Amino acid sequence: MAMPDFSRPQPALPADDSDRLLRLRQLFPISGPDLTAWPRVPMPVLCTASILFTDLRGFTRLTERFAHDPAGLLEVLNAHLKKVLRSISICGGVVEKFVGDGVMATFGASGDEADHVGRAMAAAIGLIGANEALNRRSAADWGFRLDVGVGIASGDVVVGAVGSADRSELGVLGDAVNVAARLVTQAGPGEVLMTGTVYRAMEAMLQSELTSQSAVRGRSGRLEIYRMSLLGGRGDLA
Amino acid sequence: MAMPDFSRPQPALPADDSDRLLRLRQLFPISGPDLTAWPRVPMPVLCTASILFTDLRGFTRLTERFAHDPAGLLEVLNAHLKKVLRSISICGGVVEKFVGDGVMATFGASGDEADHVGRAMAAAIGLIGANEALNRRSAADWGFRLDVGVGIASGDVVVGAVGSADRSELGVLGDAVNVAARLVTQAGPGEVLMTGTVYRAMEAMLQSELTSQSAVRGRSGRLEIYRMSLLGGRGDLA
Repeated sequence: MAMPDFSRPQPALPADDSDRLLRLRQLFPISGPDLTAWPRVPMPVLCTASILFTDLRGFTRLTERFAHDPAGLLEVLNAHLKKVLRSISICGGVVEKFVGDGVMATFGASGDEADHVGRAMAAAIGLIGANEALNRRSAADWGFRLDVGVGIASGDVVVGAVGSADRSELGVLGDAVNVAARLVTQAGPGEVLMTGTVYRAMEAMLQSELTSQSAVRGRSGRLEIYRMSLLGGRGDLA
Repeated sequence: MAMPDFSRPQPALPADDSDRLLRLRQLFPISGPDLTAWPRVPMPVLCTASILFTDLRGFTRLTERFAHDPAGLLEVLNAHLKKVLRSISICGGVVEKFVGDGVMATFGASGDEADHVGRAMAAAIGLIGANEALNRRSAADWGFRLDVGVGIASGDVVVGAVGSADRSELGVLGDAVNVAARLVTQAGPGEVLMTGTVYRAMEAMLQSELTSQSAVRGRSGRLEIYRMSLLGGRGDLA
């Protein structure tokens, strides 16, 4: 394959945008820590944790609506994320990274092993409630609602440095991470999708107290899924 | 809902693991920069970029195989990621974050606008080739192969600070990000899945030079997808 002509300059961005982009990149350096001592980076740790993903439903449509107002888009998104971050933090979770319009958080993958399933569930319920309060306050002004879905899975994960000496992050790897990431894509507005492991750890508490709960058992592949609807519910699994 | 009993201590991790976990967390602090001056953070920037995702096929099975050897698992993963990072870096891309066993990289979202589609495609071809070289050298020792898939999409994205003053990252948001993330999940071993926009920008170059190319047109929803197989190919879109 002929190499593309990398030398061809295409200064597409206005100078002002270009300058702002540079300052944003400087504010958020992405190289990670200096790991020239990479061989001395601590070995990875295997631990049992709960993984929580959030995702805004219909955010792509919102992106189109704000196509010419990126600042307005991020203002709305950050108002939502602030609620999400706070709910997770209150319950002792760690926001590992932002994933598009949502986050990936872990409970029990930082040394605090106390009841990580309960903490994750409390964070999910808290963030859906806080987001609903945000809707009640702002949806009329905005002209639209922000609807959030949550996926939770529990299991063994590996916590360790991923990447190379030049560019690294702390990675959390394992089936529970993949499953929670898949669950969140199927969660409807105000819903928490969870694995059987998570559901059984929380079952008594959810059924006795959460009157709007409609946990439904389903299967996706070999995966046992329970759905909890906190905003009235959409019924069974699709 | 009764709050879970957060006070109940469950010191599940051996002291040695717990200490290592703490050191890993200290090495990779995740709060982001101090944004107490958040209102003065530069406004987000709208730019046209190419987004590349990589993903290892069958890594979940590998995770199970290494269930009791997390260090071995990360050693194999990092050998692969080193090739991926290097190929992206050579072509001028920025690795925004690690996503499970893969990465999300951008081309043209850091001020360097020159031919971002060509750069992304060159990085994809480069990393699949470098990974194949890694397989030739190590697969026999390992007892398994590492197979990588790539997804590429191009379009307008918003680059800006997401999160809150306490916890923030530089976010890259837009339809192209979502599409590329979806494409990579469908890419087979040694395959690059791309949108019509990406394909048409590269068409002449790919068809004339890449003899093992088998770009196939398909549709997933309203999305026009082209598939390029660099390792012999698996035929049409599923």
